[in-house]
Amino acid sequence: MAEERELAHFPHLWYQEFYTGNNMGLFIKVKRIVYTKQTKYQRIDIFDTYDLGRVFALDGITMTTDLDEFMYHEMLVHVPMFLHPNPRKVLIIGGGDGGSLREVLKHESVEKAILCEIDPDVIEAARKYLKTSVEFDNPKAEIINENGAEFVRKFKGEFDVIIIDSTDPTAGEGGHLFTKDFYKACHDALKENGVLSAETESPVYDYGWVRMAYNRIKSVFPVTRIYLGFMSTYPSGCWSYTFASKGIDPIEDLDEERVSSFQKPLRYYNAEIHKAAFVLPNFVRELLEPKKG
Amino acid sequence: MAEERELAHFPHLWYQEFYTGNNMGLFIKVKRIVYTKQTKYQRIDIFDTYDLGRVFALDGITMTTDLDEFMYHEMLVHVPMFLHPNPRKVLIIGGGDGGSLREVLKHESVEKAILCEIDPDVIEAARKYLKTSVEFDNPKAEIINENGAEFVRKFKGEFDVIIIDSTDPTAGEGGHLFTKDFYKACHDALKENGVLSAETESPVYDYGWVRMAYNRIKSVFPVTRIYLGFMSTYPSGCWSYTFASKGIDPIEDLDEERVSSFQKPLRYYNAEIHKAAFVLPNFVRELLEPKKG
Repeated sequence: MAEERELAHFPHLWYQEFYTGNNMGLFIKVKRIVYTKQTKYQRIDIFDTYDLGRVFALDGITMTTDLDEFMYHEMLVHVPMFLHPNPRKVLIIGGGDGGSLREVLKHESVEKAILCEIDPDVIEAARKYLKTSVEFDNPKAEIINENGAEFVRKFKGEFDVIIIDSTDPTAGEGGHLFTKDFYKACHDALKENGVLSAETESPVYDYGWVRMAYNRIKSVFPVTRIYLGFMSTYPSGCWSYTFASKGIDPIEDLDEERVSSFQKPLRYYNAEIHKAAFVLPNFVRELLEPKKG
Repeated sequence: MAEERELAHFPHLWYQEFYTGNNMGLFIKVKRIVYTKQTKYQRIDIFDTYDLGRVFALDGITMTTDLDEFMYHEMLVHVPMFLHPNPRKVLIIGGGDGGSLREVLKHESVEKAILCEIDPDVIEAARKYLKTSVEFDNPKAEIINENGAEFVRKFKGEFDVIIIDSTDPTAGEGGHLFTKDFYKACHDALKENGVLSAETESPVYDYGWVRMAYNRIKSVFPVTRIYLGFMSTYPSGCWSYTFASKGIDPIEDLDEERVSSFQKPLRYYNAEIHKAAFVLPNFVRELLEPKKG
C-alpha cells in the first residue's frame, strides 16, 4: 500500500499532448496518477491536476477534464437531441467516459440509450474514476463493448439519434469511425426523421480531417452542416462537430421554447448558442468549399 | 556572422507559455530565434516555429503568430469599426505589432489612425521582423510611444473609435489598461457616437479579469457587451472582447450590407459572425451576472 501511494505521487511530473506532429502542444502538471493501463486497443491514463481537475487521456490525447468536458459533451449531444422532435432511442458510438450518455439522459423522452464503446477497460476505468460515468447504471442505459462500426450495421431504421463520440482518426480504433462506409451504416440505422452528430476535429490544426469527415458525411446524408464550439483543452480550442439528418434543418427546425423550458442544468448550450454555432468564420467556410478546377 | 547564425539555431529549444499559475500551458518547438531583448518595459521574443510561423511574445506571453493573429485582430477591430457609421479618427492603445492598425486601415473612411504603443522597442522589432507591421508607413498612420493611459487623457470628444489592444493585466505595463480611470478617460476621448473595443482575456482561465474589465467598462459606458471569438494560441482558445459605446447597439446598429460589400479580404469576420459573437454560452453569462446577496 505504501508502494502504491509512492507510485501515485510524482512532484515533478508533466503530461504533454502533442497537437501537430511533434512541434507543439499542451503541458499539464500532474498532481497524482490515478490509473494507467495499456489495453488491447490503446493506452488509458487518468490523472489529477492542479487546474483542470481529473484528466482522462487515450494514447496521449486528452479526452475529458473536469474543467471543460461540459463544453464538448453539451455541444455534441444537445444540438441533435433538441433538433429531433421526440428522441426516444439513441445510439452513442465511442464516448466510453459516459459524458455523452449523461447529456442524452437529461432528455426525458429517451427510453433507451445504447453506449457502444469498443474498449471494456475504458468503461471499467470510467466507472471507477470518472464523474462523467454517472449514468452508467441508469436503467435506460445499455453499455455494449463492440466495434461501433460493426455494431451499427446490425440496425436498419432503428434510432432517432446517433452520436459519434470518437477519439482522433489516428488514435486507438478511431479511424474506423471516420469512413464513408461507417457514415452510410449510421444513415441506414436511423429512422426516417433521424439525426446524427459527430465530433470532427479542429478546423485550425486538423482542417484536412474536418474537410474529409464533412465531405464523407455529406455524400451520405441529404442535410449536412458543420458547427463549432469552444473546447479549452482540445487542440486550438476551436472544435468542429458535424450535424446530419434525413431532412431536419439545424436552424429552422429548432424549437426554442423546448430549449428554454428544459429543466436540467446546462452550462454551455442554450437556444441562441445552438444557432450561433452554425455561423462559421470565413476561414472555416473556405476550407469546406469544393476546390476549383 | 558565423557566430550569429549559430546563436540563432537551436535544434532542441522549446518555448513554454504558462497559462494558469505554473501548472499548465502551451509548448512550441523553436526553429530559430529571430530577436530577443529586455526593454525598459518587458521582454520581447520573436522566433520562428514549425507550425505557427513566426511567433511574437512579451514577457513569455504569446501576442501574435502568423497562423492565427488574424482571428484576434479581425474580431478586436472590425466589430467596433463596422458599428460606427463613419469611422474617421481612430486610436489604438497598445497593439505595437501593428495587426490592429492593419485592420483599421482596411476601412477607407479612416483619415487618421493613431497607434499609441508605450514601448519603442516593440515598434522597432515589429517593423523589422513582423508582417503585421505592414501599415506602419501608411500616411494615415501615426505612431506614438507614450503610456496609453496618460496619452488618452489629452483628448476630449476626439475619436470615433478606440481600440484597446493590451497585453495581459499582469504583463509589462498591461495593468494600466484595465483600470476604471483609464476606461473613463477613453469614454471622454470619444465623440458623442463613439465606440470602443477592448481585449478582455479568457473566460475559462481568467474569468476574474473578464468580470473585472467588463464591470469597470460598464460603470463608465451606457452600452457594454462582451463578445467571444476563437483564438488558437491564446489560453483556452476562447477569447473575450468587450464592446462599449455611448448609445450604438452592437446588434441593431450593424449595417450588414456594408459588411458584405467590403472590398478588403477578411479571413474570420463576417456579418453573421459579428452577431453570433455576442451570443454567450451559459457559463459566460453566469460569470457576468452580479452575485446575489
